[in-house]
Amino acid sequence: MDMNVNIQDSTKVIAEDFVSLCKAGKADEAGDRYWADDVLSIEPTGSMPPARGKEALRKKGEWWEGAHEIHRMDIDGPYVNGNQFIVRFTIDVTEKQSGTRMKMDETGLYTLKDGKIAEERFFYSRG
Amino acid sequence: MDMNVNIQDSTKVIAEDFVSLCKAGKADEAGDRYWADDVLSIEPTGSMPPARGKEALRKKGEWWEGAHEIHRMDIDGPYVNGNQFIVRFTIDVTEKQSGTRMKMDETGLYTLKDGKIAEERFFYSRG
Repeated sequence: MDMNVNIQDSTKVIAEDFVSLCKAGKADEAGDRYWADDVLSIEPTGSMPPARGKEALRKKGEWWEGAHEIHRMDIDGPYVNGNQFIVRFTIDVTEKQSGTRMKMDETGLYTLKDGKIAEERFFYSRG
Repeated sequence: MDMNVNIQDSTKVIAEDFVSLCKAGKADEAGDRYWADDVLSIEPTGSMPPARGKEALRKKGEWWEGAHEIHRMDIDGPYVNGNQFIVRFTIDVTEKQSGTRMKMDETGLYTLKDGKIAEERFFYSRG
Protein backbone atom coordinates (compact mmCIF):
# COMPACT_ATOMS: atom_id res chain seq x y z
CA MET A 1 0.00 0.00 0.00
CA ASP A 2 2.81 2.46 0.79
CA MET A 3 3.99 2.48 -2.81
CA ASN A 4 0.42 3.08 -3.99
CA VAL A 5 0.03 5.99 -1.56
CA ASN A 6 3.28 7.47 -2.88
CA ILE A 7 2.12 7.11 -6.48
CA GLN A 8 -1.17 8.87 -5.68
CA ASP A 9 0.61 11.66 -3.76
CA SER A 10 2.92 12.21 -6.71
CA THR A 11 -0.11 12.26 -9.05
CA LYS A 12 -1.67 14.99 -6.88
CA VAL A 13 1.43 17.18 -7.08
CA ILE A 14 1.66 16.87 -10.86
CA ALA A 15 -2.11 17.26 -11.38
CA GLU A 16 -2.22 20.44 -9.30
CA ASP A 17 0.71 22.01 -11.11
CA PHE A 18 -0.81 21.00 -14.47
CA VAL A 19 -4.17 22.55 -13.55
CA SER A 20 -2.54 25.70 -12.11
CA LEU A 21 -0.81 26.28 -15.44
CA CYS A 22 -4.06 25.68 -17.37
CA LYS A 23 -5.94 28.09 -15.10
CA ALA A 24 -3.23 30.69 -15.78
CA GLY A 25 -3.86 30.30 -19.52
CA LYS A 26 -0.60 28.37 -19.97
CA ALA A 27 -1.96 25.08 -21.33
CA ASP A 28 0.94 24.93 -23.79
CA GLU A 29 3.47 25.17 -20.95
CA ALA A 30 1.51 22.52 -18.98
CA GLY A 31 1.82 20.18 -21.96
CA ASP A 32 5.49 20.93 -22.52
CA ARG A 33 6.21 20.15 -18.89
CA TYR A 34 4.16 16.98 -18.43
CA TRP A 35 3.40 15.26 -21.76
CA ALA A 36 5.48 12.13 -22.36
CA ASP A 37 7.31 12.15 -25.70
CA ASP A 38 4.93 9.49 -27.05
CA VAL A 39 1.78 10.84 -25.33
CA LEU A 40 -1.51 9.65 -26.83
CA SER A 41 -4.50 12.02 -27.08
CA ILE A 42 -7.94 10.47 -27.56
CA GLU A 43 -11.13 12.39 -28.39
CA PRO A 44 -14.60 10.79 -28.44
CA THR A 45 -15.39 8.53 -31.39
CA GLY A 46 -16.42 10.51 -34.46
CA SER A 47 -14.80 13.82 -33.49
CA MET A 48 -11.05 13.59 -34.22
CA PRO A 49 -8.68 10.65 -34.70
CA PRO A 50 -6.19 9.95 -31.89
CA ALA A 51 -3.00 12.05 -31.96
CA ARG A 52 0.34 10.63 -30.89
CA GLY A 53 3.45 12.47 -29.69
CA LYS A 54 4.29 15.79 -28.08
CA GLU A 55 4.73 17.60 -31.40
CA ALA A 56 1.37 16.40 -32.73
CA LEU A 57 -0.37 17.52 -29.54
CA ARG A 58 1.33 20.91 -29.66
CA LYS A 59 0.04 21.38 -33.23
CA LYS A 60 -3.43 20.20 -32.21
CA GLY A 61 -3.46 22.80 -29.43
CA GLU A 62 -2.28 25.56 -31.76
CA TRP A 63 -4.92 24.64 -34.33
CA TRP A 64 -7.65 24.69 -31.68
CA GLU A 65 -6.58 28.04 -30.26
CA GLY A 66 -6.38 29.53 -33.75
CA ALA A 67 -9.83 28.26 -34.74
CA HIS A 68 -11.65 29.52 -31.64
CA GLU A 69 -12.13 32.71 -29.72
CA ILE A 70 -12.27 31.92 -26.01
CA HIS A 71 -14.51 34.24 -24.00
CA ARG A 72 -14.14 32.40 -20.72
CA MET A 73 -12.76 29.10 -19.44
CA ASP A 74 -13.57 27.57 -16.05
CA ILE A 75 -11.63 24.63 -14.71
CA ASP A 76 -12.70 22.22 -11.93
CA GLY A 77 -10.31 19.78 -10.35
CA PRO A 78 -7.98 18.05 -10.42
CA TYR A 79 -9.75 14.89 -9.20
CA VAL A 80 -7.24 12.17 -8.30
CA ASN A 81 -7.15 8.38 -8.02
CA GLY A 82 -3.90 6.38 -8.17
CA ASN A 83 -1.88 7.30 -11.27
CA GLN A 84 -4.81 9.07 -12.93
CA PHE A 85 -6.53 12.43 -12.63
CA ILE A 86 -9.60 14.12 -14.12
CA VAL A 87 -10.07 17.80 -15.01
CA ARG A 88 -13.33 19.48 -16.05
CA PHE A 89 -13.27 22.31 -18.60
CA THR A 90 -16.27 24.59 -19.18
CA ILE A 91 -15.56 26.90 -22.09
CA ASP A 92 -17.57 29.79 -23.54
CA VAL A 93 -16.21 29.92 -27.06
CA THR A 94 -16.90 31.15 -30.59
CA GLU A 95 -15.90 28.96 -33.53
CA LYS A 96 -14.31 31.56 -35.79
CA GLN A 97 -15.20 30.00 -39.15
CA SER A 98 -18.93 29.61 -38.48
CA GLY A 99 -19.27 32.43 -35.97
CA THR A 100 -21.15 30.02 -33.69
CA ARG A 101 -20.85 30.77 -29.99
CA MET A 102 -21.25 27.77 -27.71
CA LYS A 103 -20.68 26.45 -24.21
CA MET A 104 -18.35 23.47 -24.26
CA ASP A 105 -18.45 21.23 -21.22
CA GLU A 106 -15.93 18.40 -21.18
CA THR A 107 -13.67 16.37 -18.92
CA GLY A 108 -10.15 15.05 -19.51
CA LEU A 109 -8.87 11.81 -17.95
CA TYR A 110 -5.06 11.89 -17.66
CA THR A 111 -2.97 8.78 -17.07
CA LEU A 112 0.56 9.20 -15.71
CA LYS A 113 3.53 6.91 -16.27
CA ASP A 114 6.92 7.72 -14.72
CA GLY A 115 5.75 11.23 -13.83
CA LYS A 116 4.61 12.12 -17.35
CA ILE A 117 1.20 12.13 -19.06
CA ALA A 118 1.17 8.97 -21.17
CA GLU A 119 -2.47 9.41 -22.22
CA GLU A 120 -5.14 12.12 -22.21
CA ARG A 121 -8.69 11.06 -23.00
CA PHE A 122 -11.50 13.58 -23.44
CA PHE A 123 -15.16 13.04 -22.62
CA TYR A 124 -17.94 15.33 -23.93
CA SER A 125 -21.22 16.32 -22.39
CA ARG A 126 -24.23 16.88 -24.63
CA GLY A 127 -24.42 20.20 -22.81
CA MET B 1 -15.63 2.90 -37.08
CA ASP B 2 -19.39 2.14 -37.30
CA MET B 3 -19.19 -0.35 -34.48
CA ASN B 4 -17.32 2.18 -32.35
CA VAL B 5 -19.94 4.85 -33.05
CA ASN B 6 -22.66 2.39 -32.04
CA ILE B 7 -20.84 1.55 -28.80
CA GLN B 8 -20.51 5.23 -27.93
CA ASP B 9 -24.18 5.94 -28.77
CA SER B 10 -25.22 3.06 -26.55
CA THR B 11 -22.96 4.42 -23.78
CA LYS B 12 -24.69 7.81 -24.07
CA VAL B 13 -28.15 6.28 -23.68
CA ILE B 14 -27.14 4.28 -20.59
CA ALA B 15 -25.14 7.17 -19.08
CA GLU B 16 -28.05 9.58 -19.43
CA ASP B 17 -30.53 7.17 -17.90
CA PHE B 18 -28.08 6.44 -15.06
CA VAL B 19 -27.56 10.16 -14.37
CA SER B 20 -31.31 10.91 -14.61
CA LEU B 21 -31.97 8.34 -11.89
CA CYS B 22 -29.15 9.75 -9.72
CA LYS B 23 -30.50 13.30 -10.16
CA ALA B 24 -33.93 12.05 -9.08
CA GLY B 25 -32.36 10.70 -5.87
CA LYS B 26 -32.63 7.11 -7.11
CA ALA B 27 -28.95 6.10 -7.06
CA ASP B 28 -29.92 2.68 -5.70
CA GLU B 29 -32.25 2.09 -8.65
CA ALA B 30 -29.51 3.30 -11.05
CA GLY B 31 -27.16 0.70 -9.57
CA ASP B 32 -29.75 -2.07 -9.64
CA ARG B 33 -30.43 -1.37 -13.29
CA TYR B 34 -26.87 -0.98 -14.60
CA TRP B 35 -24.28 -2.61 -12.31
CA ALA B 36 -22.90 -5.88 -13.67
CA ASP B 37 -23.17 -8.79 -11.21
CA ASP B 38 -19.40 -8.71 -10.64
CA VAL B 39 -19.04 -4.88 -10.78
CA LEU B 40 -15.86 -3.52 -9.22
CA SER B 41 -15.93 -0.24 -7.24
CA ILE B 42 -12.61 1.54 -6.68
CA GLU B 43 -12.06 4.52 -4.36
CA PRO B 44 -8.80 6.50 -4.21
CA THR B 45 -5.88 4.80 -2.46
CA GLY B 46 -6.10 5.11 1.31
CA SER B 47 -9.86 5.76 1.54
CA MET B 48 -11.66 2.40 1.19
CA PRO B 49 -10.63 -0.96 -0.25
CA PRO B 50 -12.19 -1.96 -3.59
CA ALA B 51 -15.65 -3.56 -3.38
CA ARG B 52 -16.73 -6.32 -5.73
CA GLY B 53 -20.24 -7.39 -6.70
CA LYS B 54 -23.71 -5.88 -6.82
CA GLU B 55 -24.58 -6.89 -3.25
CA ALA B 56 -21.38 -5.37 -1.83
CA LEU B 57 -22.01 -2.10 -3.68
CA ARG B 58 -25.62 -1.99 -2.50
CA LYS B 59 -24.39 -2.34 1.12
CA LYS B 60 -21.71 0.28 0.55
CA GLY B 61 -24.38 2.70 -0.71
CA GLU B 62 -26.66 1.95 2.25
CA TRP B 63 -23.79 2.48 4.69
CA TRP B 64 -22.89 5.80 3.08
CA GLU B 65 -26.46 7.08 3.08
CA GLY B 66 -26.91 6.04 6.70
CA ALA B 67 -23.67 7.74 7.82
CA HIS B 68 -24.37 11.08 6.12
CA GLU B 69 -27.05 13.71 5.99
CA ILE B 70 -27.23 15.11 2.46
CA HIS B 71 -28.23 18.78 2.29
CA ARG B 72 -27.78 19.12 -1.44
CA MET B 73 -26.31 17.15 -4.33
CA ASP B 74 -25.45 18.61 -7.75
CA ILE B 75 -24.60 16.38 -10.67
CA ASP B 76 -22.76 17.38 -13.87
CA GLY B 77 -22.59 15.14 -16.88
CA PRO B 78 -22.57 12.52 -18.14
CA TYR B 79 -19.39 13.03 -20.19
CA VAL B 80 -18.94 10.28 -22.76
CA ASN B 81 -16.10 8.65 -24.70
CA GLY B 82 -16.39 5.16 -26.22
CA ASN B 83 -17.53 2.62 -23.62
CA GLN B 84 -16.83 4.96 -20.70
CA PHE B 85 -18.52 7.92 -19.06
CA ILE B 86 -17.71 10.40 -16.29
CA VAL B 87 -20.10 12.01 -13.80
CA ARG B 88 -19.27 14.83 -11.38
CA PHE B 89 -20.91 14.91 -7.94
CA THR B 90 -20.82 18.01 -5.72
CA ILE B 91 -22.36 17.19 -2.35
CA ASP B 92 -23.10 19.40 0.65
CA VAL B 93 -23.15 16.84 3.43
CA THR B 94 -22.86 16.36 7.19
CA GLU B 95 -21.05 13.30 8.52
CA LYS B 96 -23.44 12.20 11.25
CA GLN B 97 -20.89 10.74 13.69
CA SER B 98 -18.60 13.78 13.80
CA GLY B 99 -21.20 16.40 12.98
CA THR B 100 -18.80 17.80 10.39
CA ARG B 101 -20.43 19.54 7.47
CA MET B 102 -18.40 19.54 4.26
CA LYS B 103 -18.54 20.05 0.51
CA MET B 104 -17.54 16.89 -1.32
CA ASP B 105 -16.45 17.32 -4.92
CA GLU B 106 -15.71 14.12 -6.80
CA THR B 107 -15.98 12.45 -10.18
CA GLY B 108 -16.82 8.87 -11.09
CA LEU B 109 -15.41 7.11 -14.17
CA TYR B 110 -17.75 4.31 -15.31
CA THR B 111 -16.67 1.55 -17.69
CA LEU B 112 -19.36 -0.40 -19.52
CA LYS B 113 -19.17 -3.97 -20.77
CA ASP B 114 -22.12 -5.59 -22.56
CA GLY B 115 -24.40 -2.72 -21.50
CA LYS B 116 -23.59 -2.99 -17.79
CA ILE B 117 -21.22 -1.10 -15.49
CA ALA B 118 -18.22 -3.41 -15.06
CA GLU B 119 -16.22 -0.83 -13.07
CA GLU B 120 -16.80 2.46 -11.26
CA ARG B 121 -13.72 4.41 -10.19
CA PHE B 122 -13.97 7.53 -8.03
CA PHE B 123 -11.63 10.52 -8.09
CA TYR B 124 -11.49 13.11 -5.29
CA SER B 125 -10.74 16.80 -5.40
CA ARG B 126 -8.91 18.41 -2.50
CA GLY B 127 -11.82 20.87 -2.60
